[in-house]
Amino acid sequence: MTVITSPKNELIKSLRKLTRKKNREEQQRYLLEGVHLVREAVNAQQPLTMILATTDFQQESWLPSQVPTYWVTPAVAQALGATVTTQGIFAVLPLSQEQLPQTYTGTWLLLDGVQDPGNIGTMVRTADAAGLAGVVLGQGSADLYSDKVLRAMQGSHFHIPIYQGDLNDWLTALKAAQVPIYGSELNPAAVDFHQVPAQQNFALIMGNEGNGMQIDLLAQTDQNLYIPIQGRAESLNVAIAAGILLFQLKN
Amino acid sequence: MTVITSPKNELIKSLRKLTRKKNREEQQRYLLEGVHLVREAVNAQQPLTMILATTDFQQESWLPSQVPTYWVTPAVAQALGATVTTQGIFAVLPLSQEQLPQTYTGTWLLLDGVQDPGNIGTMVRTADAAGLAGVVLGQGSADLYSDKVLRAMQGSHFHIPIYQGDLNDWLTALKAAQVPIYGSELNPAAVDFHQVPAQQNFALIMGNEGNGMQIDLLAQTDQNLYIPIQGRAESLNVAIAAGILLFQLKN
Repeated sequence: MTVITSPKNELIKSLRKLTRKKNREEQQRYLLEGVHLVREAVNAQQPLTMILATTDFQQESWLPSQVPTYWVTPAVAQALGATVTTQGIFAVLPLSQEQLPQTYTGTWLLLDGVQDPGNIGTMVRTADAAGLAGVVLGQGSADLYSDKVLRAMQGSHFHIPIYQGDLNDWLTALKAAQVPIYGSELNPAAVDFHQVPAQQNFALIMGNEGNGMQIDLLAQTDQNLYIPIQGRAESLNVAIAAGILLFQLKN
Repeated sequence: MTVITSPKNELIKSLRKLTRKKNREEQQRYLLEGVHLVREAVNAQQPLTMILATTDFQQESWLPSQVPTYWVTPAVAQALGATVTTQGIFAVLPLSQEQLPQTYTGTWLLLDGVQDPGNIGTMVRTADAAGLAGVVLGQGSADLYSDKVLRAMQGSHFHIPIYQGDLNDWLTALKAAQVPIYGSELNPAAVDFHQVPAQQNFALIMGNEGNGMQIDLLAQTDQNLYIPIQGRAESLNVAIAAGILLFQLKN
């Protein structure tokens, strides 16, 4: 058994570069960290390129025998890890390129310039739990494969399709399929979300944390929804608002 | 006008220690960072001990003239700041000690061992937006005055009372006041939250991210609620679940 002992090993050096989006795109792969996420990937039968783990994991029966596995020292694991205390297990996966859907039936969550990785990841997890058809990340949204997004998604990107694309194109396709489009911008024409009946097929757009939705997208919504604020908070966190709206509106 | 130019200035050194809970308790104060939060504190008429800011802020008319203000160089601001690029403005405030409430009317959110600072902060912000009577942090929940909790709260701790205490004592008082207590643990006796009518007075307990609620607290709830999961996600983020439950159950 060979154990990689140096953080300067060529493979390790190239994997450490995957913390940056530019390098993920160049190498067309990303790094997944931690027992829970790697197990989720295995359970969801994802096309793992390789696994890297400290020798503590040698007896783990769930590790797939057909995936090339590299053993590493704790120091190498620490160098690869994004957290202060790494669990010492990683998987490398190809970036996935979702094809456009065959049908626009179901519920869709569209993210317009959402910046915070934790918010994006949490919304993907919530979309999964709510049984959505998919999530679309518009231009200007933070990248899906950063460590923080991956951690917040908890593996939900293995369960539902995630698209990256121009939201204008998506709205055109959704409108053609007669799917109602709801915005979430507080403006005078906005409607209390309690007034909208639960339904199967719709798209909900959530905007940027500070600036909300882009005006040209807002102009294309069928209705804008708001969540009444009773206290003195100025607003809700965007992921909380998405959770409340999806679990109320979706049938 | 004096400008503090050295991160080794005694005041700056003592404020830098406030990143640790132990030191916050020793000094009985905490540091608030950023334009939005400092303005919120001013608007909410909080008892600010002092303000520290780079000279860029000298012309800001909202800075309260009665609060001692220290000007600092960008390097000192960077040393004080918890973020990579600080906005260069800080306030020091006393730790607040909430007295027990006079009445238990209204809605209460009780956090049982919630660990993630972002989750705690987001739940306080959500509780504010939902018009709650207060939030109680049980033993084992992360500290209220860490930088990450403060950032996620967005100033909501200036709007609603936040208590820290033993949840067993709280449950005793809530029961004596005949306030229904809902747990949020998925167990065979749990009830779909849609089946519970909206109401004014109740308490909701949210548990630890990994382990849920403590068994002895669970035994004291009137009902346990669950949010049905439609997709393949194992669970919802605790703050998302709290948002969905509060906005559905609270009248």
